[in-house]
Amino acid sequence: MSKNLTKREEDYSKWYNELVVKADLAENSGVRGCMVIKPYGFAIWEKMQAALDKMFKDTGHENAYFPLFIPKSYLSKEASHVEGFAKECAVVTHYRLKNDEDGSGIIVDPEAKLEEELIVRPTSETIIWDTYRRWIQSYRDLPLLINQWANVVRWEMRTRLFLRTAEFLWQEGHTAHATEKEAIDEAELMLGVYANFAENHMAMPVIQGVKTESERFAGAVETYCIEALMQDGKALQAGTSHFLGQNFAKAFDVKFASKEGKKEHVWATSWGVSTRLMGALIMTHSDDNGLVLPPKLAPIQVVIVPIYRGLDQLDAISDKVAPLVKELRAKGISVKYDNRDTHKPGFKFNEYELKGVPVRLAIGQRDMDNGTFEVARRDTLVKETVGANEVVSKIEFLLDDIQKNIYKKAFDFRKENITEVNSYDEFKKVLEEKGGFISAHWDGTNETEERIQTETKATIRCVPIGVEVEQGVCMVTGKPSNKRVFFAKAY
Amino acid sequence: MSKNLTKREEDYSKWYNELVVKADLAENSGVRGCMVIKPYGFAIWEKMQAALDKMFKDTGHENAYFPLFIPKSYLSKEASHVEGFAKECAVVTHYRLKNDEDGSGIIVDPEAKLEEELIVRPTSETIIWDTYRRWIQSYRDLPLLINQWANVVRWEMRTRLFLRTAEFLWQEGHTAHATEKEAIDEAELMLGVYANFAENHMAMPVIQGVKTESERFAGAVETYCIEALMQDGKALQAGTSHFLGQNFAKAFDVKFASKEGKKEHVWATSWGVSTRLMGALIMTHSDDNGLVLPPKLAPIQVVIVPIYRGLDQLDAISDKVAPLVKELRAKGISVKYDNRDTHKPGFKFNEYELKGVPVRLAIGQRDMDNGTFEVARRDTLVKETVGANEVVSKIEFLLDDIQKNIYKKAFDFRKENITEVNSYDEFKKVLEEKGGFISAHWDGTNETEERIQTETKATIRCVPIGVEVEQGVCMVTGKPSNKRVFFAKAY
Repeated sequence: MSKNLTKREEDYSKWYNELVVKADLAENSGVRGCMVIKPYGFAIWEKMQAALDKMFKDTGHENAYFPLFIPKSYLSKEASHVEGFAKECAVVTHYRLKNDEDGSGIIVDPEAKLEEELIVRPTSETIIWDTYRRWIQSYRDLPLLINQWANVVRWEMRTRLFLRTAEFLWQEGHTAHATEKEAIDEAELMLGVYANFAENHMAMPVIQGVKTESERFAGAVETYCIEALMQDGKALQAGTSHFLGQNFAKAFDVKFASKEGKKEHVWATSWGVSTRLMGALIMTHSDDNGLVLPPKLAPIQVVIVPIYRGLDQLDAISDKVAPLVKELRAKGISVKYDNRDTHKPGFKFNEYELKGVPVRLAIGQRDMDNGTFEVARRDTLVKETVGANEVVSKIEFLLDDIQKNIYKKAFDFRKENITEVNSYDEFKKVLEEKGGFISAHWDGTNETEERIQTETKATIRCVPIGVEVEQGVCMVTGKPSNKRVFFAKAY
Repeated sequence: MSKNLTKREEDYSKWYNELVVKADLAENSGVRGCMVIKPYGFAIWEKMQAALDKMFKDTGHENAYFPLFIPKSYLSKEASHVEGFAKECAVVTHYRLKNDEDGSGIIVDPEAKLEEELIVRPTSETIIWDTYRRWIQSYRDLPLLINQWANVVRWEMRTRLFLRTAEFLWQEGHTAHATEKEAIDEAELMLGVYANFAENHMAMPVIQGVKTESERFAGAVETYCIEALMQDGKALQAGTSHFLGQNFAKAFDVKFASKEGKKEHVWATSWGVSTRLMGALIMTHSDDNGLVLPPKLAPIQVVIVPIYRGLDQLDAISDKVAPLVKELRAKGISVKYDNRDTHKPGFKFNEYELKGVPVRLAIGQRDMDNGTFEVARRDTLVKETVGANEVVSKIEFLLDDIQKNIYKKAFDFRKENITEVNSYDEFKKVLEEKGGFISAHWDGTNETEERIQTETKATIRCVPIGVEVEQGVCMVTGKPSNKRVFFAKAY
């Protein structure tokens, strides 16, 4: 297949949009802002889900399922929460269609109007805390550690496949605790889980930090986040974990009897990652030839392409390949043997390059004669000839090495693209000419943050965690600051 | 814990409703008709999903994801389809909330009215076939074998946990084929997969059949179904598989170029099972002591309860139990060691009986002295003392035996509750006094079917597959019939 993929240099945004569609990951649907996730894209998402779900369960969480709909009055109970979500809500107002009396077609039945409108969940804090009120009476019911895999809807005006869609898939953890400290520990624990997943499964380095007040989740006391850097120098928020204080417990009157018999409001967290991670994954590693997938998330880890003339040669190759496929599968490696007779090897090579399959084996008559395979790795595109006896260990080595190598490449890229600046002029110059994360002192006020955003379109991505105190002055106002924060233009 | 569960004899319906809540499976939410699936219930559903998902993939299907919303005009394209679903649709009409100008709260913003209303999917044929038009051009694109795990909404007026809820979780397979035969084969294959799952995982015997015209899926040419029998003698439709003919291909103009280069409409199937299976599972096996779960779907297969006085005894027991837990887990058996100090053994026994844990081990001081465990099986409630050396093999035996035993029990019950009748009077008498499936001759007309339903509330559950031709006369009209069909009152 011919790829016809725009180059990143030429138009990064166009490259991304084309790649998502051409690699069979997703496409726009007939419903404004809603995407169809195609089988190949969904298979990657399933791998992400499986890894995350295991990590959640290993840290003591259980899955449950809460309603898709949220009564308007629930959403309204936490003031800053509704303020944050009201502008982008899909609202169900009726529960029936009927035939128009003039015979012109199907219309909404005006008599089937709901007494109270229902909001399609943009996030589930309100419906879940309404439920937790029934579940939590005593300290013995705590902590409550629950996660939900679900679809959510936020009526975004400008949408992009995976990065910003009206409907998206995600998981949302919602936990309840007896003490403030325990809830903060949970929020931080889950941030760590996300960072671990991003770095060790997605091979995507992330900065862990906290959001400034203006970027905080609507209803949170503190929002923790992981921020990744894309190849075009823009940042992408890849996951958030919120310490919600007692805000939702108060709004929904959720109290527990402590060991001492006192009635107290419960402390809460919530945390989520979404199909947005697919966008991050694509943009972190892929190149002008197509997708580059980390072996741990690749639906097909190894593809084997036979190169033959006539069915006799194909049969001989297939006989040679069969035990190899079996051996690899027994080791838990996912292998595809592409013996389609409808496409040429060159077409297949292009297709699997485009789809980011980490390791490609080819075998033709000469290989058959020599007892070899041609082994190609997707990350560096390097090819080599390997003896049949060594091919399994070679593949195992490559799957491990590609995972490490693309992480290192992304890590080095990020390292080169974190720039410390000490003046606003320098800041603007770096932002304009280089992009990436800019580490700078800021006076901690909303006003300055807003001014910087208005003037440069850069936002504070996070106040990094675990960074040493450094006395300095705000690059804009000259007021004192004791920590550098990370700015960037962002997705 | 005290169970306080209504007896089945007393009020089967009340027993069910109480059991679902008391066993921590699900509960009603604040949103009319929508349930909350609690962690224990969801864990069972996850086991069902995992087994089904593997069966779908083993038969060549891939997962994908399509939008939650369906534009009204899509739903309207297939006439009988919209007719079937229009009366129970949740309709999104607006995309924004705002503060009421009089300060009284949050209202739907009248200026944010959608040009075209969106229906929350009651099933996805229309949005999926709109997509398939883009995916299918040639016979090379066929068959297209796709499944989706999703939530759907049907605005039911009378709802019951798991059995009939406004929102429910399900999977829906949607396949496209080049020939009529291939599509029919697929619909039958998936019916077989469902029957296999019901019998071998849920331990629930099912009758495979086809629906009569009046009970057919809206838009289908033929609806295949599996029907199970509940302990109160009512039938429950547990899964359906539809041969859709070319109805959706024609409505959405999906054509493919055949090998001969002719443009032809594509043939289709769809098939689904839902969280309704949870209701079927509960009602098939459970008893007056609570849930009875088949070992293959039990989130906890073995629970171990220590019986002790003082922490010294508990420590000694815990030391004894630890290697057993490890050994069982290594064999893939899910074990819970319940060493909570806040509850007495009797409370725990009741709790795990209520929750249907297949095997319960208890160990106290006397067992410690004798090197034994007390082993109890949930299905028969039989207890015995087993030497520590034999306990692992005993558990393995029991997990297998319970799975078989509850299937046999359900099978025998169904066998006793299939009654052949040859007159309408006999039919009414059996229906009234015994219930169950009634096998009778019927003349094949809608009119007779409707009359029987109006007069007796029984419906034709299915025309069974694989049953021999038997000449007879309709029990109502005396007209000729060549096959018995199954009637029952149903959920």
